[in-house]
Amino acid sequence: MSDLLEQAVEPDEYSGRLTRVRAVLAERGLGALVVSDPANLFYLTGYDAWSFYTPQCLLVPADGEVQLFARAMDAAGASYTCNLRADQIHGYPEHLVHRPDIHPYDWIAGVCRDFVPVGADVAVEADAHYFTPRGYLALGNGLPGRRLLDSAELVNWVRLVKSEHELRQLRIAGGIAEQAMRIALDQLHPGVRQCDLVAEILAAQATGTPEHGGDYPAIVPMLPTGNAAGTPHLTWTDRPFVAGEATTIELAGVFGRYHAPLARTMMLGDPPRRLRETAKIVADGMSAALSTIWPGVTGSAVHAAFNDVIAAHGLVKESRIGYSIGIGYPPDWGERTVSLRPEETTVLTAGMAFHVILGMWMDGWGYELSEPVVVTADGVERLTGLSHELTIRR
Amino acid sequence: MSDLLEQAVEPDEYSGRLTRVRAVLAERGLGALVVSDPANLFYLTGYDAWSFYTPQCLLVPADGEVQLFARAMDAAGASYTCNLRADQIHGYPEHLVHRPDIHPYDWIAGVCRDFVPVGADVAVEADAHYFTPRGYLALGNGLPGRRLLDSAELVNWVRLVKSEHELRQLRIAGGIAEQAMRIALDQLHPGVRQCDLVAEILAAQATGTPEHGGDYPAIVPMLPTGNAAGTPHLTWTDRPFVAGEATTIELAGVFGRYHAPLARTMMLGDPPRRLRETAKIVADGMSAALSTIWPGVTGSAVHAAFNDVIAAHGLVKESRIGYSIGIGYPPDWGERTVSLRPEETTVLTAGMAFHVILGMWMDGWGYELSEPVVVTADGVERLTGLSHELTIRR
Repeated sequence: MSDLLEQAVEPDEYSGRLTRVRAVLAERGLGALVVSDPANLFYLTGYDAWSFYTPQCLLVPADGEVQLFARAMDAAGASYTCNLRADQIHGYPEHLVHRPDIHPYDWIAGVCRDFVPVGADVAVEADAHYFTPRGYLALGNGLPGRRLLDSAELVNWVRLVKSEHELRQLRIAGGIAEQAMRIALDQLHPGVRQCDLVAEILAAQATGTPEHGGDYPAIVPMLPTGNAAGTPHLTWTDRPFVAGEATTIELAGVFGRYHAPLARTMMLGDPPRRLRETAKIVADGMSAALSTIWPGVTGSAVHAAFNDVIAAHGLVKESRIGYSIGIGYPPDWGERTVSLRPEETTVLTAGMAFHVILGMWMDGWGYELSEPVVVTADGVERLTGLSHELTIRR
Repeated sequence: MSDLLEQAVEPDEYSGRLTRVRAVLAERGLGALVVSDPANLFYLTGYDAWSFYTPQCLLVPADGEVQLFARAMDAAGASYTCNLRADQIHGYPEHLVHRPDIHPYDWIAGVCRDFVPVGADVAVEADAHYFTPRGYLALGNGLPGRRLLDSAELVNWVRLVKSEHELRQLRIAGGIAEQAMRIALDQLHPGVRQCDLVAEILAAQATGTPEHGGDYPAIVPMLPTGNAAGTPHLTWTDRPFVAGEATTIELAGVFGRYHAPLARTMMLGDPPRRLRETAKIVADGMSAALSTIWPGVTGSAVHAAFNDVIAAHGLVKESRIGYSIGIGYPPDWGERTVSLRPEETTVLTAGMAFHVILGMWMDGWGYELSEPVVVTADGVERLTGLSHELTIRR
């Protein structure tokens, strides 16, 4: 029961979120927004189900109430999680699912015509994972006289600064992440099959704590090992771990859809010198990055602090060293807004949350260290408490 | 090690798959196909990583070799799983990720221009989960003089009839599904938190068997309980199971990305009459459906056999009673081709595989029974061996 109470969002908070979204609509002169990213649906209404594999969306008219669209069988149960009245929830008929000739967005557009005036500009989430070109074209065809524009992650940007409620969820998620990682590091021994270690991690993620049950992560545990540790996104096999090899582990603790991701590296046996040295440099780079995080600095400055440390040792990292986090659904736990990289001009403010991930993916080996953090009024708050060293099991 | 050997696809099988895809391209007069569905990428090349949250695709020119595109950090490790040479794998630069002004498909289109002649019609997977409108528009803009068309699930349809290799994967997946469901039914007791039962299921799915480690499912375990059992796609909470309530459980066993989904219903205590009667009727409906599956019958006929049984008892089911299965990636384990429903004209042939799922989602309660099956030369092969009755724990 605990989690449902602690996850409950106050009605005021929902209306505040919607007000912030509508302010952007007004600023851009948009008549409506069609939200299809499951994380954005959850943020604005609480709607939460594994139903995003068929089309679903929330229509946010500039004026008037929001309208939720989902497959009929999911619309029927939407009220279990979302804050909308039954007459704001529209279920499209079952026979529209997976048909070559007709599409759910034909039907959705038909209903939307009543809520979106002719001549309006309508923003859509043109780069969201579950909004397809076919859906986009059907929506456009079904809304004659309106123009579809890219929202450019409008709601994702509104999500950037977290409320106190959201920070509480993230802290609980951090506790679950730390516990899952402790179990992973504790159980990783030569001869253990990768799939059996993953079983322990998955169980720890779901169980959470006696007070707070865990939720499912947007990404399964990833643990490239041996040569493959040079590539970040391989999932597991049933091969056993081998003495003399390093394994990078990336996982998340999740509470009420809020994600605290975490990465560490485990060496079975004496680490090669290059790994030991890289681990030391990366730990220093993490310290430099974390101590730079402060309201008023840019994402670029955080990256520069890290980069100065590793560059002094001749190391190079091409990819970003972090990204904004919060609500997550498969296939990604990032918010797709602020990245910690040279091109990032966004100024950090208190309440933003980041996964600072220092992944060094070399040719045939790799090292990962990460920390989920929150920007506070006077610096940074870590969401987990594990050491930033390379873990070694001799 | 076992699973990697058993999962290995013969080079001949890959070339046969590509030949079948190219035959359809020729038939439709297409100059190229851009494959972005991760299941289709895996089918055609073996490429397998949790990298589908940033753009990736396989270009299949009507003439010439296939070309794989992925983010640089993923392209570097693609050779661990796919059957392509390094010069067929193209990594787009890191700075294109999550940018408002430029998109990875701008870059991908630029490389594709060398492989796709002006004037060609190019099919794209316009309703695949990870191909966005923004990616689609960027690809179109970057390929001037070529026309983009919807592939209409071209590769998915090529996947419909399974090879002997694929049937072996499915049978192993069926064994894992059965074991995970046995554990779920065994551990579901009053007072157990939903999240703790899910922890057991997830662990069983990953562990698999001593011979065959499990792979991750495209969908997390779903177990709506009590009133919520009337809605199919709710995920878990940390509330405990309660005596007097029924729970529907849907999960999959997965081996080398092949999915055998399975659903059962557990009643804690004496079942209400409506549940007991529905369970009996649905079991009869399952028998009727399975005994109708035979090479030469349509998907519609299978649905009709089920529907005749339940209609005689005054029951109605609006949604399809099954769909084609095989390779799966989040968020769905269905192939998005053949459905078992009134509109389905596809004729079944040996080697097709289906998840026959009889979900009766009522107002405030529900019942689910399913069976993953393969169409054989002389009927149907079940992939799991559990009873088709309602499970009752008094």
